[in-house]
Amino acid sequence: MPEPRIAPARVCRFIHAALERLGLPAEDALTVARLMTQAEVQGSDGHGVIRLVPYARRIRAGGVNVRPHIRIAKEKPAMALLDGDNGMGHLVMQKATQIAIAKARQCGVAWVGARASNHAGPASLYARMALEHDMVGVYYAVGNANHLPPWGGLDMLLSTNPVAVAVPAGEEPPVVLDMATTVAAYGKVKARAQRGEPMPEGWMIDRQGQPLTDPKRAEEGFLLPIGGYKGYGLALVIGLLAGTLNGAAMGSEVIDFNHDDTTPTNTGQAILVIDPDAFGEVAEFKARVDKLVREMRASERLPGVERIWLPGEQSHEKRIANERDGLALSAPLRTQLDSLARELAIPPLADT
Amino acid sequence: MPEPRIAPARVCRFIHAALERLGLPAEDALTVARLMTQAEVQGSDGHGVIRLVPYARRIRAGGVNVRPHIRIAKEKPAMALLDGDNGMGHLVMQKATQIAIAKARQCGVAWVGARASNHAGPASLYARMALEHDMVGVYYAVGNANHLPPWGGLDMLLSTNPVAVAVPAGEEPPVVLDMATTVAAYGKVKARAQRGEPMPEGWMIDRQGQPLTDPKRAEEGFLLPIGGYKGYGLALVIGLLAGTLNGAAMGSEVIDFNHDDTTPTNTGQAILVIDPDAFGEVAEFKARVDKLVREMRASERLPGVERIWLPGEQSHEKRIANERDGLALSAPLRTQLDSLARELAIPPLADT
Repeated sequence: MPEPRIAPARVCRFIHAALERLGLPAEDALTVARLMTQAEVQGSDGHGVIRLVPYARRIRAGGVNVRPHIRIAKEKPAMALLDGDNGMGHLVMQKATQIAIAKARQCGVAWVGARASNHAGPASLYARMALEHDMVGVYYAVGNANHLPPWGGLDMLLSTNPVAVAVPAGEEPPVVLDMATTVAAYGKVKARAQRGEPMPEGWMIDRQGQPLTDPKRAEEGFLLPIGGYKGYGLALVIGLLAGTLNGAAMGSEVIDFNHDDTTPTNTGQAILVIDPDAFGEVAEFKARVDKLVREMRASERLPGVERIWLPGEQSHEKRIANERDGLALSAPLRTQLDSLARELAIPPLADT
Repeated sequence: MPEPRIAPARVCRFIHAALERLGLPAEDALTVARLMTQAEVQGSDGHGVIRLVPYARRIRAGGVNVRPHIRIAKEKPAMALLDGDNGMGHLVMQKATQIAIAKARQCGVAWVGARASNHAGPASLYARMALEHDMVGVYYAVGNANHLPPWGGLDMLLSTNPVAVAVPAGEEPPVVLDMATTVAAYGKVKARAQRGEPMPEGWMIDRQGQPLTDPKRAEEGFLLPIGGYKGYGLALVIGLLAGTLNGAAMGSEVIDFNHDDTTPTNTGQAILVIDPDAFGEVAEFKARVDKLVREMRASERLPGVERIWLPGEQSHEKRIANERDGLALSAPLRTQLDSLARELAIPPLADT
């Protein structure tokens, strides 16, 4: 039986109602609901609606400040450091990105870091915000649980620290890379566990170095970095830029939000915005991106390869399909959302 | 028989003399010589002295402008775009980095891109320049020959486009990541070919998708990206930021400097400098970096692992050893340098 499709607007209303009931001001609840829905619509299922139940659990445990005073702690013409006051990461990083866009317009380039933030959904959400202004967005974050040891090690001191880069194109979809520095993001492991599907070999190993393919056993092992020591190095320097530089948690300071609902996570994130208008004609730049995209797509292919994808192109197609057809939330997820609705005494998703 | 060790200062004088004889102004020849020697000293053997002979060939063929007018083509408070006038990349990117450091001091963060540049040596050379100012450096470049197809493709439309990130520490060596977005950099393939050593499986495949391990056959195949499609995505977005944004070559526009000595490469590079002083107390930041470095190093280890390395730590130790003991240039490289000395009518390295 195919899963029933649910209009994104309805999912958004449901999340909005849940977050408002959990104590967020209406406007903030709407902001977070929109971003979580956008994540789901673009196919970032590990960072979308699936996160509502753990967010609710954490908020109810007092681990997130539902009425934060998000303030600029430090500022220079092309940078700012936000203190998120332990608010929802979506609120902190939407504000950070708006500031970065405004500063980039003045200075050509701007960087805004955040501390005392929280999980903010998929990295590409914020990098993509620059696209509406014909700008380039680059986002870095410290993940909210350590699943990666240093290369050769066993102590899980690093998270999957993701990077996203969004580059505007002309007629083509924008180029949007959104990647964890591990072979798989932990959100994907969680999604497999929820769907009851095994993981491919190469995603995780156990403490004996053996492949780990059962996502329910994920806590017995750790994720593997891309390119071996290179992925370890990337995870480390992204953490230095998004966490340590901002005075946010890194290494052993990272709070595992899967097991601790009350300690503030002091999550660190950073957004870099570059204004192509400072470099030359924006239309010419976008035409050059189009040309490059088309070159990649037109490449001769290895045997058995049907199509060459550009980064972000599959998300782009999912976004179009999900907006048209509605979202297919898994049965276990819908059951969870129904329980949450009962707990919060809000109408279930089916009646929203 | 062990290779004779040669003092770095002597290697620098030799390169300086060669480049001056090739037409570079004395000061520029010295700048390039110092940076090339520094590359060799830190163990970047694929991007150090080994490049002198191909640089000389290209200069004598007229493919590099030995007296460039390197100018700021576009500028805003936190950015600049340099036109390198087809000069040596070392000159262009040293200037770019100096500008970025000065602008970062004012604005907190700065980004300087370059077009009409050329190969500039290892990425970490420029990222590391920020360290002397207690700043963070991030460097991106478009490589000078395409060895990587888009994921699933056969047309070599991408280079190994490297990234380097340098982060200052306190008592510990700085964290310096310098990586190609391929499993191996092409410079390493060249170094293997010169030393007559095979490559491990996983560095390259041929057009049938089979492992390629003979570095002398490198032109029959292509490099593999790290993390599969992720490394392809990284190579592409780095190229967009370092090349396309600056109006420099990307994709099919990239000139293969192994086979074409005369066409200007229009190489693109970019340097991002972040001033930790804008974010808080620099001493505290560096202490936090130290703490993190020590945590990584102290991790429990997988069986058989003797030591956990931080990115840049092996280069740091090589730098110390090479400065103390001198550089060990391979016999084939010394033979090449002797031939070059004869051609240029300058004293050989042994008499420099």
